[in-house]
Amino acid sequence: MNERPLILVSNDDGYQAKGINCLVGVLREFGDVVVVAPHTGRSGKGCSITSEVPIKVTEISSEPGLKVYSCTGTPCDCVKVACHAFVPRRPDLIVGGINHGDNSAVNAHYSGTMGVVLEGCMKGIPSVAFSLCSHDPDADFTPTYDVIRRVVSVVLERGLPAGSCLNVNFPDTPKYAGVKICRQAIGSWVNEWEAHNHPRGGEWWWLTGEFVAEENDASADRVALDNNYVAITPTRIDFTDYTLLEEMKNWGL
Amino acid sequence: MNERPLILVSNDDGYQAKGINCLVGVLREFGDVVVVAPHTGRSGKGCSITSEVPIKVTEISSEPGLKVYSCTGTPCDCVKVACHAFVPRRPDLIVGGINHGDNSAVNAHYSGTMGVVLEGCMKGIPSVAFSLCSHDPDADFTPTYDVIRRVVSVVLERGLPAGSCLNVNFPDTPKYAGVKICRQAIGSWVNEWEAHNHPRGGEWWWLTGEFVAEENDASADRVALDNNYVAITPTRIDFTDYTLLEEMKNWGL
Repeated sequence: MNERPLILVSNDDGYQAKGINCLVGVLREFGDVVVVAPHTGRSGKGCSITSEVPIKVTEISSEPGLKVYSCTGTPCDCVKVACHAFVPRRPDLIVGGINHGDNSAVNAHYSGTMGVVLEGCMKGIPSVAFSLCSHDPDADFTPTYDVIRRVVSVVLERGLPAGSCLNVNFPDTPKYAGVKICRQAIGSWVNEWEAHNHPRGGEWWWLTGEFVAEENDASADRVALDNNYVAITPTRIDFTDYTLLEEMKNWGL
Repeated sequence: MNERPLILVSNDDGYQAKGINCLVGVLREFGDVVVVAPHTGRSGKGCSITSEVPIKVTEISSEPGLKVYSCTGTPCDCVKVACHAFVPRRPDLIVGGINHGDNSAVNAHYSGTMGVVLEGCMKGIPSVAFSLCSHDPDADFTPTYDVIRRVVSVVLERGLPAGSCLNVNFPDTPKYAGVKICRQAIGSWVNEWEAHNHPRGGEWWWLTGEFVAEENDASADRVALDNNYVAITPTRIDFTDYTLLEEMKNWGL
């Protein structure tokens, strides 16, 4: 590569979050960085896109090797509009995070951080999401840096297969047991709502809940995290169930 | 089964859309129906959830065998809150649709209709999404009814494997070439944004774009639709890339 790699960064906690700013610090060691991130928190936005209103992109700062924009859209919108108009050339890598919170197991479906990398993956660009299992706005991200460096270095060198991206989750501990290549854990959310009386009448429902792991297998990402491993879950944009596909050919539909 | 099946229905076009009302008409042949659907259009909301504000659920109508509620949340929220508080017992089936628009290929990631059934699937309930490849608010849904009846009948009888749901897309034609069990087509969106000057200064970006198919294989859902087949794509909530998982064990991370 003659020029420095170009790395596009986004997240779902907003461009001012500590996690994305820590991430940018590490990524600048590897290349030029363009940040296009939500103007405010957009947690839980998954792969959602904004079609009902237009979005706005605002330049926040510009210095050699780093440009930062805020965007009123979702994490997916950020990647879409960045690739359309706010990167000088096709990025070599798209990175989401570092998310303030766990994106393992089924959380990957709700995650705006995963929205960033699924969108990047759909655009054929190697894409990696990083998340720390802590919702503390002032969480200590420094223990994650070494693994981030290793993953970014390997992905810049090898690329990723077409249609696949990485979901990397860090346990909230200063010392990791190691790095484990995992699959998405089986589990689900329960007790998801709290009803409250609205001051002007009627009930309003707040989303809350607890995640219940439904397995104990060491190769499941949520289980690896519980055992203090960094969990790397390779993730496909093709979520066809090929086993059921073959079976259903005999269902007479 | 001693009592009639209980079927929970939602969508992303809102409870007043023609598609969901046509669907409810067909589903009432099979069981009691509870509708909890967005109070307005929530297209492109994928698996997003609402955590930053509370949501409200309003009863719209009630008659023997059919209850209808509107909900200010996303399609996923609708299923979550319905299962928590607005169904008399665990549903036997969750159905999303009939969506006004194509949810084949990567569109499945952005689709609120698929958000409904992925959420249903995460709750361990057999879940099926129906979509018609027409955005016309007054589209003719009657050609879809026979296939909907066959799919619903088979799924109520057999169930679906844990962790899998169905994404059924209908071509916009009165006469189908047949029904094909498919995989998610490879393709992507291009030319996705239009810049417009805002009356009070600056540029605003509208999401638009064209889908470009990147393959011609008859078993891909988007290709089947182009050939006038109804495309049924079995879909997993586990989107781990197991091939890459094994390969990455040798990457020295």
